[in-house]
Amino acid sequence: MNNILVKPIGFIFNDRIEPIDDNWSSVESIIHLADDLPDECFDGIEEFSHLEIIYHFDKSTKTFIGSEHPRENKDYPKVGIFAQRKKDRPNHIGATIVNLIRREGRKLIIRNLDAINGTPILDIKPVFNEYLPVGEVRQPQWTKDLMKNYW
Amino acid sequence: MNNILVKPIGFIFNDRIEPIDDNWSSVESIIHLADDLPDECFDGIEEFSHLEIIYHFDKSTKTFIGSEHPRENKDYPKVGIFAQRKKDRPNHIGATIVNLIRREGRKLIIRNLDAINGTPILDIKPVFNEYLPVGEVRQPQWTKDLMKNYW
Repeated sequence: MNNILVKPIGFIFNDRIEPIDDNWSSVESIIHLADDLPDECFDGIEEFSHLEIIYHFDKSTKTFIGSEHPRENKDYPKVGIFAQRKKDRPNHIGATIVNLIRREGRKLIIRNLDAINGTPILDIKPVFNEYLPVGEVRQPQWTKDLMKNYW
Repeated sequence: MNNILVKPIGFIFNDRIEPIDDNWSSVESIIHLADDLPDECFDGIEEFSHLEIIYHFDKSTKTFIGSEHPRENKDYPKVGIFAQRKKDRPNHIGATIVNLIRREGRKLIIRNLDAINGTPILDIKPVFNEYLPVGEVRQPQWTKDLMKNYW
């Protein structure tokens, strides 16, 4: 009950085959629009510098629901799954704001996406300044340490 | 084929019953964690000022895939569904960054969510500065006009 069916609206192509935790900014990705959607879906998208990509961690076979050390690093405090961004989460949904380099027909060339080759995309939203955080963003120290080499 | 099953990890409670386009910042919302998930899911979440809420536009019965005027306003250019944020989109997924006011056990009290009462939540992610846009955010004029009274 309450189940919701979603399906890919596109797929990621890039040269990162294995899920590695760090150095994502070196990866350029291409999003291919799904075959059952028309080219027009992307009309006007080049007017935006940034897109939010919502994707499916389809290679993740675990679902973590308790409170654990992020990256199994005991230097980090135990936190719940909704206080961290790891992939082994209920619904296995990822969300990242990327830079749109250009549109080529049914393709989008993007940077700063942290998803591997073949990843199914569930949605693409243009980033408006009006949707960015209101007020200063506060986050615990462990997240800053974890993100040190991420991009 | 390629279908993905997701299910709510929580639900929104607030006093906005009808989908109205504007003045969302006046609405305070409460997220209730789904019954099948443990309290620990929220452990440590109060260390973050902002959360990204990924939700399901479950009242939307239309799916728009072409190129149209946002809000059916002819003053705005025709753009594709992935160049706008309207709810009648493939997979009907919404995503908004909100302010966390406080956690109370299995509840989160939040502000600046643009979702009506009863909306199913698919994921909650803490906002890290490192996940905010890299470089200046550029967006077309029509979006600024559309967002004028949104919050």
